[in-house]
Amino acid sequence: MTSNNDLPTALDLPMVVPLPEDTQKYFDVCVDKLGMVPNVLKAYAFDIDKLNAFAAMYNNLMLADSGLSKLEREMIAVVVSSINRCWYCQVAHGAAVRALSGKPELGEAMVMNWRMADLDARQHAMLLFSEKVTKSSAEIEERDRQALRVVGFTERDIWDIVSVVGFFNMSNRMASATGMRPNPEYHGQAR
Amino acid sequence: MTSNNDLPTALDLPMVVPLPEDTQKYFDVCVDKLGMVPNVLKAYAFDIDKLNAFAAMYNNLMLADSGLSKLEREMIAVVVSSINRCWYCQVAHGAAVRALSGKPELGEAMVMNWRMADLDARQHAMLLFSEKVTKSSAEIEERDRQALRVVGFTERDIWDIVSVVGFFNMSNRMASATGMRPNPEYHGQAR
Amino acid sequence: MTSNNDLPTALDLPMVVPLPEDTQKYFDVCVDKLGMVPNVLKAYAFDIDKLNAFAAMYNNLMLADSGLSKLEREMIAVVVSSINRCWYCQVAHGAAVRALSGKPELGEAMVMNWRMADLDARQHAMLLFSEKVTKSSAEIEERDRQALRVVGFTERDIWDIVSVVGFFNMSNRMASATGMRPNPEYHGQAR
Amino acid sequence: MTSNNDLPTALDLPMVVPLPEDTQKYFDVCVDKLGMVPNVLKAYAFDIDKLNAFAAMYNNLMLADSGLSKLEREMIAVVVSSINRCWYCQVAHGAAVRALSGKPELGEAMVMNWRMADLDARQHAMLLFSEKVTKSSAEIEERDRQALRVVGFTERDIWDIVSVVGFFNMSNRMASATGMRPNPEYHGQAR
Amino acid sequence: MTSNNDLPTALDLPMVVPLPEDTQKYFDVCVDKLGMVPNVLKAYAFDIDKLNAFAAMYNNLMLADSGLSKLEREMIAVVVSSINRCWYCQVAHGAAVRALSGKPELGEAMVMNWRMADLDARQHAMLLFSEKVTKSSAEIEERDRQALRVVGFTERDIWDIVSVVGFFNMSNRMASATGMRPNPEYHGQAR
Amino acid sequence: MTSNNDLPTALDLPMVVPLPEDTQKYFDVCVDKLGMVPNVLKAYAFDIDKLNAFAAMYNNLMLADSGLSKLEREMIAVVVSSINRCWYCQVAHGAAVRALSGKPELGEAMVMNWRMADLDARQHAMLLFSEKVTKSSAEIEERDRQALRVVGFTERDIWDIVSVVGFFNMSNRMASATGMRPNPEYHGQAR
Repeated sequence: MTSNNDLPTALDLPMVVPLPEDTQKYFDVCVDKLGMVPNVLKAYAFDIDKLNAFAAMYNNLMLADSGLSKLEREMIAVVVSSINRCWYCQVAHGAAVRALSGKPELGEAMVMNWRMADLDARQHAMLLFSEKVTKSSAEIEERDRQALRVVGFTERDIWDIVSVVGFFNMSNRMASATGMRPNPEYHGQAR
Repeated sequence: MTSNNDLPTALDLPMVVPLPEDTQKYFDVCVDKLGMVPNVLKAYAFDIDKLNAFAAMYNNLMLADSGLSKLEREMIAVVVSSINRCWYCQVAHGAAVRALSGKPELGEAMVMNWRMADLDARQHAMLLFSEKVTKSSAEIEERDRQALRVVGFTERDIWDIVSVVGFFNMSNRMASATGMRPNPEYHGQAR
Repeated sequence: MTSNNDLPTALDLPMVVPLPEDTQKYFDVCVDKLGMVPNVLKAYAFDIDKLNAFAAMYNNLMLADSGLSKLEREMIAVVVSSINRCWYCQVAHGAAVRALSGKPELGEAMVMNWRMADLDARQHAMLLFSEKVTKSSAEIEERDRQALRVVGFTERDIWDIVSVVGFFNMSNRMASATGMRPNPEYHGQAR
Repeated sequence: MTSNNDLPTALDLPMVVPLPEDTQKYFDVCVDKLGMVPNVLKAYAFDIDKLNAFAAMYNNLMLADSGLSKLEREMIAVVVSSINRCWYCQVAHGAAVRALSGKPELGEAMVMNWRMADLDARQHAMLLFSEKVTKSSAEIEERDRQALRVVGFTERDIWDIVSVVGFFNMSNRMASATGMRPNPEYHGQAR
Repeated sequence: MTSNNDLPTALDLPMVVPLPEDTQKYFDVCVDKLGMVPNVLKAYAFDIDKLNAFAAMYNNLMLADSGLSKLEREMIAVVVSSINRCWYCQVAHGAAVRALSGKPELGEAMVMNWRMADLDARQHAMLLFSEKVTKSSAEIEERDRQALRVVGFTERDIWDIVSVVGFFNMSNRMASATGMRPNPEYHGQAR
Repeated sequence: MTSNNDLPTALDLPMVVPLPEDTQKYFDVCVDKLGMVPNVLKAYAFDIDKLNAFAAMYNNLMLADSGLSKLEREMIAVVVSSINRCWYCQVAHGAAVRALSGKPELGEAMVMNWRMADLDARQHAMLLFSEKVTKSSAEIEERDRQALRVVGFTERDIWDIVSVVGFFNMSNRMASATGMRPNPEYHGQAR
């Protein structure tokens, strides 16, 4: 928020001009669906290969089939981003939790203190594990994975939980360390 | 190391059989060049889309053109993995630092305590920043980025440093939380 | 949020019935002005002496004359509550920052990562000091106080900053340790 | 201790002169009973409303009826102050533990390491909870409160424990951040 | 304090009976000079070789010639023991600081918060360095040693500071992990 | 590694010249057996009394009879040194674990993340306890010692575990704070 120009981060890395046709289409779809191009995509657009690699991984992780619902994946995203205090990701994915759940206070609780949310045993175990993987992954032991199996998660589900936790530990650092600004549209969504 | 089977992690997620032709070729190249298929690739091979997304991002990050040398990227990888105490990544990328630098003790120092290595001002700044992004990314401020510019890093270089730091904060958690085992071949390499 | 009754906390400590006349008037004023009686007041109302002592200190601190604006005091309240991850106080005082500033994103930034907010030197120094007093008060030295004087704070202002930081370090623990639930009305205010 | 004047803190905030009659009486009672006016009261006496609000809350908390003995409240005070390493509060309330218990070594243990004191199950649970509320209140869950009920604490007792913990988390920060000096008389008391 | 027998620690390791003549003489000297045999010596006396090795290192470190006064060495001992919250060492060496300095409040400040003591630049630098070596020795760099040289410490003095810090990081863990009880005589000394 | 002279640390404390006859013999034995004089001995050799006290304690601890095997003592040494990130001790004692066990990967695991090693219940308990004594000795309670007894450790074994943990918490700080350089011969040993 300290810069007065249009760059999505604090780094002077403008988007390629013009964007390749596929990228332009992708961005147009974003505007249609979301009302904006998320700044994280603009930030990567100085290098289309990097943008494509990021988008492919993101879409596979957050949108493809999984034993985790999209809401659950977004809940993990916000809890991880809250631990890491990532401004961009808490804003953007907090909005997603509000929208997908229809419960504004659930998005708030994921940001502020997930333990205070009204969760069932499955979601409590999922977030407790996500917190430990974020804070002290080196101490994860078999019993931590077992605690997920006990509440019904499959091997593949566990992989997916870990993947979402891992991904946001990456993107939180990308956003915070580059000074990435969230699009202002997020703040008022689904309140 | 606690499992007695051939799975690369503690999750029961076997590779697809048979592997798609492209994947098999990729794995054959690994065997030719490295003498093995790194277990991280086998771990992802239960789902070829996920494997491809991971490999595309990894290859772009660690092997594509950059103002950072391949050795510098591997040094960052090991320092991040040491902070997170990731068994798999310290083993595999520690070997890479030894091989690329021709200095076994440099690989050791990245694992054990990077401050004790014999580094020039550029590399010291790079690793100090990488450490801060790993430990407390929310406290990164403009002056942290400025400290990189002062020793000669470009805007694009800073993006690349952050990307490598971010990536290993993801893959460290993937490896530790799934109990990923490093291939034993790494231990003796480039000693 | 785990309890299904009307108590404001997880402790079985109902309000005195009937409330003393003065207390009832105070609560009526709350309803008139805020549209609700904040749950923190209901929580204390099992013992009117305790309620009065709490309200007297709160009102002196947050509403009486001070070199700090009401908005600044609320900004400190939210930053402290964010560090302590207090659900009740982030919800209630986050709403106050949004309302007093007219900038919803400022309330969000105080909750999520104050360093990412667009602050002048005075407010940056104020929040940096508040963070240090919250996290490591034993390491406050004269130069920390001096950093406040340099940006224009008086001796009395410093006392007031410390008092607000101290107060929310108390009330955060009161709220979190008793499982205090924020009134749902706060979530949608001033978005 | 670095200042050579008579101010009770490092802030230049002298007491109002003359003190209001009620305040002067209160201070006279202190001298009669304690042999001094505690510096914390002198520190607040630059503003009589603030002094009164502080004293009212303190007296209600530490001296009024409670299921916790005065000694137990002082034990909590010292344990919290030890975690926060507050010079003023450890000195003043350490003396109180020595005096109320008649056991100098109990006061020492509360300052140095409460786990090494000879405690019954009730007091052990009380201090373990107090430590957690001080260090990580956001992680308090129902089972933490339940552990207090199991050893005999009532709902009201739990409120009182939390209140004392909260209060000293406030006053520790007031004292440390303002550089408050303990009255020298405390050091030799009840040894 | 939880054991009701005469053993100096929580381990069932009684002294050899009878003590060798030299050991008995050493213990007799302790009684003459100190009025007791410090429990740490009794604790080691289940194995005379271990006792002798410990005593030799202790005596060389704390009593032999050094550019550091005995008081300064004891100040370091208490600050380290306070950070590690060692019950035995804070009690025993806190008494030594009170006795050697003639200032009871200095012993208290070393236990409670060394930053609040009235120290000159030399002693402030010495304790700041001791704190860092205790908490994060891996981050010590040349400039930390240089800060000691600037206030007048020699190369040998720096070695001695490090040695005392190191020694108490050892003995704090010996005492805490074995449940070592301080002799009760210490509490009232030099108050 | 930043110094270009022959001193074993960053302090200008050269060995006494000539060495006393006994010391010279000791160093000659080192060269015969190890192919070098370990730099830690050279570092202490500016003062022969200090060298002798250190060597006596070290030899008693690591080489004398104990219920712990020499390998187990070295495993503890490396785990402690890894937590403290001591460059010298991880290099030297990591080599010892590799040599004594004949398993290079065991030495690596002790350095990188002991939880990932293939350990039996006895060794797991031993290292878990060692980690806790290193990180938070003040929180050791009877049940921690009891967990060692349950897997077969005697009272004397517990003392020995604590002693090794304590010793390396001392020597890690000696080495890191003086900038001690490991002999280069260690890196390639027993790979």
